[in-house]
Amino acid sequence: MPHLWQCQGVRRPDTTAGAVRQGSLRELNLAVVLGRIAAAERPPSRAELAAETGLTRATVSAVVEDLVTGRLVAEAEPTPRTGAGRPARGLVLADDGPAGLGLEINVDYLAACVVDLGGRVRHHTVRRADLRPVSPAETLARLVELAAQARADAANQGLTLAGAALAVPGLVDDAGLVRLAPNLGWRDVPVPALLAGHPPLTERIDGVPPLVVDNEANLAALGELHAGPPGPASFLHISGEVGIGAGIVLDGDLFRGARGWSGEIGHIPVRPEGRPCRCGGRGCLERYAGQEAVLAAAGLAGADLPADSAAARLAELAGAGDPAALRALHDAGTALGVAVAAVVNLLDLDTVVLGGGYAPLARWLCPPVLAEISARVLTAAWSPVTVRPATLGATAAAVGAAGSVVRRIVARPGGWLARAS
Amino acid sequence: MPHLWQCQGVRRPDTTAGAVRQGSLRELNLAVVLGRIAAAERPPSRAELAAETGLTRATVSAVVEDLVTGRLVAEAEPTPRTGAGRPARGLVLADDGPAGLGLEINVDYLAACVVDLGGRVRHHTVRRADLRPVSPAETLARLVELAAQARADAANQGLTLAGAALAVPGLVDDAGLVRLAPNLGWRDVPVPALLAGHPPLTERIDGVPPLVVDNEANLAALGELHAGPPGPASFLHISGEVGIGAGIVLDGDLFRGARGWSGEIGHIPVRPEGRPCRCGGRGCLERYAGQEAVLAAAGLAGADLPADSAAARLAELAGAGDPAALRALHDAGTALGVAVAAVVNLLDLDTVVLGGGYAPLARWLCPPVLAEISARVLTAAWSPVTVRPATLGATAAAVGAAGSVVRRIVARPGGWLARAS
Repeated sequence: MPHLWQCQGVRRPDTTAGAVRQGSLRELNLAVVLGRIAAAERPPSRAELAAETGLTRATVSAVVEDLVTGRLVAEAEPTPRTGAGRPARGLVLADDGPAGLGLEINVDYLAACVVDLGGRVRHHTVRRADLRPVSPAETLARLVELAAQARADAANQGLTLAGAALAVPGLVDDAGLVRLAPNLGWRDVPVPALLAGHPPLTERIDGVPPLVVDNEANLAALGELHAGPPGPASFLHISGEVGIGAGIVLDGDLFRGARGWSGEIGHIPVRPEGRPCRCGGRGCLERYAGQEAVLAAAGLAGADLPADSAAARLAELAGAGDPAALRALHDAGTALGVAVAAVVNLLDLDTVVLGGGYAPLARWLCPPVLAEISARVLTAAWSPVTVRPATLGATAAAVGAAGSVVRRIVARPGGWLARAS
Repeated sequence: MPHLWQCQGVRRPDTTAGAVRQGSLRELNLAVVLGRIAAAERPPSRAELAAETGLTRATVSAVVEDLVTGRLVAEAEPTPRTGAGRPARGLVLADDGPAGLGLEINVDYLAACVVDLGGRVRHHTVRRADLRPVSPAETLARLVELAAQARADAANQGLTLAGAALAVPGLVDDAGLVRLAPNLGWRDVPVPALLAGHPPLTERIDGVPPLVVDNEANLAALGELHAGPPGPASFLHISGEVGIGAGIVLDGDLFRGARGWSGEIGHIPVRPEGRPCRCGGRGCLERYAGQEAVLAAAGLAGADLPADSAAARLAELAGAGDPAALRALHDAGTALGVAVAAVVNLLDLDTVVLGGGYAPLARWLCPPVLAEISARVLTAAWSPVTVRPATLGATAAAVGAAGSVVRRIVARPGGWLARAS
């Protein structure tokens, strides 16, 4: 027996179908107009939007009114008049509408950030702590505190959180179950169930899942993809933390693999008979170029520095010419270069971005990585590979997480508007 | 000043546009009907084609007549009548129409094969010779002899070669220039220029490039993708010859990388400080699992066996329990497993196909490959990886090359029909 609402219109299938098409058309027009406003280099007027989209001016005006009422779009400050008559008001993404909450759990810190529709970071907090001895439930409880602060700060700025995404340094399935996060010691942690009852994260919003849990390296790669001016559409983004993960971006999309487990560059064997790894394997890249290995090689073992402090301390020492730090970074870069050479031989990517804790160390890591590429990649002589530091560095995963929420709203504004109205 | 033919119809743009649309529609109908006949499990009748495609019976009849006239489709032998009335005649791909010529240059053999529209191999010749001391021009001259024999044999069977594809064990650019084939000692060999004047390969056919040159591992992966019943849409196909190449198939398509150089698994470093490689690197997989390394480890160095003989000889020895052969295959499988573990950690592929000379040795190679995957792939415990021998083995590249020609015709039959009419 179908539900009652499904029976409506059974006698008038054409009308029903027409109504559905009408609804879809409105959704499409909202998305098209909002997408043009988001992509424009300077605030477009309604007339310009009509010309660019092929919609009538009346349709554009109606769509813009819906977007303004729903706090997705605002009138820009008037520009100085350049000709006769009243200057047309340009339209911009609202800076007091919906926003995305980005969260990150890493081995030695928690982070929360809020990104508005235009991609601006409006709030960012990092709380440092070694989370390896902390239970998953307690870690998530601390994360909820950070999220509550972020929500309060967002509300003070007139923003409404429209969804959240959480980055974890491990393998996450579609239901948000963290199958394995070796450096945290997590195995089969049901994040959504543990978070149930924490309103800032789980409040349901029409059409927007309240919380998406994803791999940290994937979200960092997405953060980098959308940071700053458009860069290459395909690249490898490496997040160097205690663990080392990669996000593979192909033609502007994240490549997730057959089952969503792609990008585990930290467990590429670079010394197959070498040091044992937490994953059970031997000679994994992490054991030679992960944060702990580099700190130990630089004589800083046990200094217990959080990721960005560790990178800053290494950069300071290397900048001052400290031989142990320089040697440690050279050896880490060489190991990283062996793994990167394997990736480039396999995938023929022309851009490698060093992110996370690697970003501030790129000055010392890039030369040995490039040397290994040059020696080991078959096509290196005529197809050069660019290796560069990430734009976002250590904040990429949280910013990428928050950005993924607002990009979903810009791509499909109907869900947000249905809730806002 | 535009060419004369471009001026036709300038005064009647609507009619011209209508004619163009009409032409495109015919192309589309030809491709749709031919595609259904190609994909059908048993020969469909015209009435069934009309029902399946939504075209009118009159349109289907006209399209089928064009396809039969152009020797792309034939009437099947009548099936025994199952009811009253005259049984409908089923339609099949013609076995005396256009065919594809597939060619392969490898380190120690040349091959030519002819595949008909239905994917049946109608001719296959392998000529063994160590081609390393032979110049590219002489190698291509010998290949043309093989191609001429293949064409004559095809003609005897009523087939017409509609195009050719050539597999080479190296890196090929869009213009057919072989940038590098390290095991052949080729560098910047302009194959199309060297072949100019050899009619069997270069005869120009409307809409079909006369010769496509491509990487051997790519064509072998395509051969495997289309061999036999549909398998997984994403897999890694490894061609084990003197060199080792891979074809990465993602969602039924070959992944070629940013510049077309993907799949160089043979140069993934598996012992970074290990044996020097012809590519200039050290410790490449080829030095541990390539044909020469395995033969040497089995005590067969200098036996100078061609690829399939080498594999057959190793299989014979291993089958008889020869300890040196068993150890050589175990060590090669372990090295291969280290590289495959790197690929699976990176790309999360769930199927690995051992092709080329590896296919007949899979019984001995699979266990160590699986052991390395199990020890080194982070997700192996809950996301198993299948490792299996290829269906085609050593013939995959030439068959894949010929198949790529006929698949182009089935996908876009208009070009062939324009020429045939």
